[in-house]
Amino acid sequence: MERMRVRTDLALEARESFEGSETEVHGVIVEEEYDEERDIRVTRVRIESERGAKEMGKPMGRYLTLEAPGMASPDENYHREISECLASCLLELMGEPHAREVLVAGLGNRDVTPDALGPKAVSNLLITRHLIREYGKAAVGGEGVNAISGIVPGVMAQTGMETSEILQGVIDQTKPDLVIVIDALAARSTRRLSRTIQLTDTGIQPGSGVGNHRGSLTRESLGVPVIAIGMPTVVEAAAIIYDAQGSCERMPPHLNGMFVTPKNIDETVRQLSYTISEALNIAFFPRT
Amino acid sequence: MERMRVRTDLALEARESFEGSETEVHGVIVEEEYDEERDIRVTRVRIESERGAKEMGKPMGRYLTLEAPGMASPDENYHREISECLASCLLELMGEPHAREVLVAGLGNRDVTPDALGPKAVSNLLITRHLIREYGKAAVGGEGVNAISGIVPGVMAQTGMETSEILQGVIDQTKPDLVIVIDALAARSTRRLSRTIQLTDTGIQPGSGVGNHRGSLTRESLGVPVIAIGMPTVVEAAAIIYDAQGSCERMPPHLNGMFVTPKNIDETVRQLSYTISEALNIAFFPRT
Amino acid sequence: MERMRVRTDLALEARESFEGSETEVHGVIVEEEYDEERDIRVTRVRIESERGAKEMGKPMGRYLTLEAPGMASPDENYHREISECLASCLLELMGEPHAREVLVAGLGNRDVTPDALGPKAVSNLLITRHLIREYGKAAVGGEGVNAISGIVPGVMAQTGMETSEILQGVIDQTKPDLVIVIDALAARSTRRLSRTIQLTDTGIQPGSGVGNHRGSLTRESLGVPVIAIGMPTVVEAAAIIYDAQGSCERMPPHLNGMFVTPKNIDETVRQLSYTISEALNIAFFPRT
Amino acid sequence: MERMRVRTDLALEARESFEGSETEVHGVIVEEEYDEERDIRVTRVRIESERGAKEMGKPMGRYLTLEAPGMASPDENYHREISECLASCLLELMGEPHAREVLVAGLGNRDVTPDALGPKAVSNLLITRHLIREYGKAAVGGEGVNAISGIVPGVMAQTGMETSEILQGVIDQTKPDLVIVIDALAARSTRRLSRTIQLTDTGIQPGSGVGNHRGSLTRESLGVPVIAIGMPTVVEAAAIIYDAQGSCERMPPHLNGMFVTPKNIDETVRQLSYTISEALNIAFFPRT
Repeated sequence: MERMRVRTDLALEARESFEGSETEVHGVIVEEEYDEERDIRVTRVRIESERGAKEMGKPMGRYLTLEAPGMASPDENYHREISECLASCLLELMGEPHAREVLVAGLGNRDVTPDALGPKAVSNLLITRHLIREYGKAAVGGEGVNAISGIVPGVMAQTGMETSEILQGVIDQTKPDLVIVIDALAARSTRRLSRTIQLTDTGIQPGSGVGNHRGSLTRESLGVPVIAIGMPTVVEAAAIIYDAQGSCERMPPHLNGMFVTPKNIDETVRQLSYTISEALNIAFFPRT
Repeated sequence: MERMRVRTDLALEARESFEGSETEVHGVIVEEEYDEERDIRVTRVRIESERGAKEMGKPMGRYLTLEAPGMASPDENYHREISECLASCLLELMGEPHAREVLVAGLGNRDVTPDALGPKAVSNLLITRHLIREYGKAAVGGEGVNAISGIVPGVMAQTGMETSEILQGVIDQTKPDLVIVIDALAARSTRRLSRTIQLTDTGIQPGSGVGNHRGSLTRESLGVPVIAIGMPTVVEAAAIIYDAQGSCERMPPHLNGMFVTPKNIDETVRQLSYTISEALNIAFFPRT
Repeated sequence: MERMRVRTDLALEARESFEGSETEVHGVIVEEEYDEERDIRVTRVRIESERGAKEMGKPMGRYLTLEAPGMASPDENYHREISECLASCLLELMGEPHAREVLVAGLGNRDVTPDALGPKAVSNLLITRHLIREYGKAAVGGEGVNAISGIVPGVMAQTGMETSEILQGVIDQTKPDLVIVIDALAARSTRRLSRTIQLTDTGIQPGSGVGNHRGSLTRESLGVPVIAIGMPTVVEAAAIIYDAQGSCERMPPHLNGMFVTPKNIDETVRQLSYTISEALNIAFFPRT
Repeated sequence: MERMRVRTDLALEARESFEGSETEVHGVIVEEEYDEERDIRVTRVRIESERGAKEMGKPMGRYLTLEAPGMASPDENYHREISECLASCLLELMGEPHAREVLVAGLGNRDVTPDALGPKAVSNLLITRHLIREYGKAAVGGEGVNAISGIVPGVMAQTGMETSEILQGVIDQTKPDLVIVIDALAARSTRRLSRTIQLTDTGIQPGSGVGNHRGSLTRESLGVPVIAIGMPTVVEAAAIIYDAQGSCERMPPHLNGMFVTPKNIDETVRQLSYTISEALNIAFFPRT
């Protein structure tokens, strides 16, 4: 039985396709937390069994999703609150705090607006690795300071290389404790666009993302923990047909390769990439 | 009887909604010309009566549509051929050749990818008006040389002014013989995207274009002949639902304000804006 | 006697060329105010006589210059303070407060980094004219609200038109009470770069600015008060030769058309254009 | 005896500082070839001894410099000729032709106009490595086809990593036969700007380039042959003082960190990066 024929990168949406069914999905634990004042909802999905992973179509691990309807608004103060909430989610996934060497990779094509989220986010990060190596930890902020490096590897059509090859090479040379990858995602519903951010400790799977990465970027493949931060910026055109008619039977073939995006996607990607980079800056450099 | 509930800026698509009906639309003349070798189709629609205008939902006048499936490909030589064909269409609409003062306006928002077609096209034009005024016609190319000026007026959210106010002011000051406006359009079908260019001597109507211009830009409103060149770069999301199920009854409300675009829209707009500006350069500065 | 052979757009620098001379310049009044805590210096130059104007090489009128060495730093809080100080200077030049219709023009070439200051500043303005016309003053903020419109006219090489022609046309159509022009300037010394902003009620003179505007933009020429806000972003290469050797005798000819800019000019123009647009937003929309 | 106090990345300029001296520099061989019709001059400097290297301040190896005064003009046909000449120079340095795996790295900061030459050049390359790996050599162009990959590593302030670390990692993973690095250079004279391209098989030395790379990128350091292609886009401000007065004695300290560039540097970098990428495309994919 195929419950979902339309691709989604969100665990939240994968789970929704089971809604209304009588039984819970085995080995999948879901918790919701709603901050009414700020209108931010955090959903924690934990896939704990192979069976749950199979049914969800997502690997075992933890998925935190932050939903905030106001995320698409240009209110700077509200974005600061989202960044803070996102920073907490990230720290929760990272576990016990200690000084880390973190490599942040902005995936996607910087020349394709809805795919440029990751590259733009990396461009606003506080980068410290080179300063610590040059001047010492004391000069930069003390023993507890995190050493952050960043890379924008580009996409295969631009580089001729798998993103995984480039990251593996950089990891081998610089030996970070943790890799964070930021990527634009495809959602199944336009309701998710520009208002949902997903964090997961399962990394990136082949076929995910706006740009459809082919190699996996996971702890297993890269040999270092990988946290993926993703935000849906597009819906594939097929998905809205499916939504409207409950199937893709009358899907016109010329819709292949078509994206649905909000009209203001250029502005949204500019703003939300900043919100994400601020979250990382808050998580790694808390003002004590 | 509503035959079309989904907006289109193309006369070609307006007419297609009557296809299969037994009678011709009164006062609407259609001619097709197909260049097999280059795979370029030119369709001439002439709306000659008020009744035809009403049924088509388009004002009386001439509409030339150039369709070329290969337009989305990056082949430079093919684009040169499209530019030449487009130049012929433009000269056909302009009528008797003589030295003109032409103001070219690139409509739309340069910061929104699918709306940036017009601004980008103007940035590649050969601009001569200031040279002729400074050095004389002889220095620039002889008596027959055209004086070209260009403007990118921006959109109302950026300027607080109607595009028509800005153009009227500039026209009053500089008194061109002809205004050409270049604009990104909304089509009804994704099959039109990035492969169709429409030229019309009816100018721009309120509500048209990706950015939804409010004032009309026509010979009547501006007091000078206006030729509009448009290329569809988006389809409204509602339109693909309509296409798939034949109605918009189950149209989800959150699809409002959503666009369907090809994945490579950034690259396409860059290339096709150049193809359009080259067509104008060929039309105005033929290598004799 | 030629005291200055190197062009400057700053009244402050024009005056400095007289320093050390025994007599004051007749009809030129200079006042300095220094805010030690914030390290911001405001200099008011008032040229009150034709003779003073001739000696200074600047038209009669008021010139306020704000100097802040920290302006090139990326500290957001400090930039907020500069924006507030700049807003006060602007209000001082504007005179008695009342609800105004203001057209803000961002001069210069947006595709040439050091000349893009004006275009970038306009892109961050709060634009209200269209909202007031559509929804009424009450909806936007009450009777006292200012109606702001903005335009980026481009430069003559792009448009074939004088900036003055375009602005005159737009002014005739939209009838603002005040025009504010924002422009990148050429300074004589690199010490002025990215740390000096000049405001004047004399508008823009022919030959000024990075892009060398040819027509004047003044109350006399446009028929409406004009305030010019300028920031030096370049020094002509000739000027630093002059500075070093006290003359331009051994000026190599290939230095013509060469600019001196700081290495981080792209970043600086991005940031300072924002600081200027924030100043206008504060001046026109005070949080009461 | 210090003959040169102002930095240059050009072997040609290093040599010129000896001009007028009676003796040749030992172990430095210079040949000039001038194509009068196309007004392109190619100078070959070969540094063959340690003593020559020391006197020149450049490592032993071959340096080809292509000078074309028309390079700054926008004539497309002329740029094609320059690309072809540059392709020949590149093939000359590469030696015996055979199918290669080549990694092309675009050094510099894409957000700083005069430093963006390399990143922009890489964005126009024909990238084939991934196609060959996916579809085989036969599908892409036969046994002799070159496998090209490209990377834009960013600068240390953006990444926290040395460019050499990133390249070493990518080289270890993808094992190219040859690395080509493209970089914007600093010249000593504005006469070299936008009209000179240098190719060398000595790679990149610490301290070179507009962005001042710290690690060396050479055959010795990376373990694979490295060809560097560089074009001067800036002159340090100190250099023009030196040129004018023959010393830097009266060098004002505030000139540190100042660049001299032509006014049209944005346009020039756009065009010349394309000329360079076309040269690589011609060299690697000759139309037979």
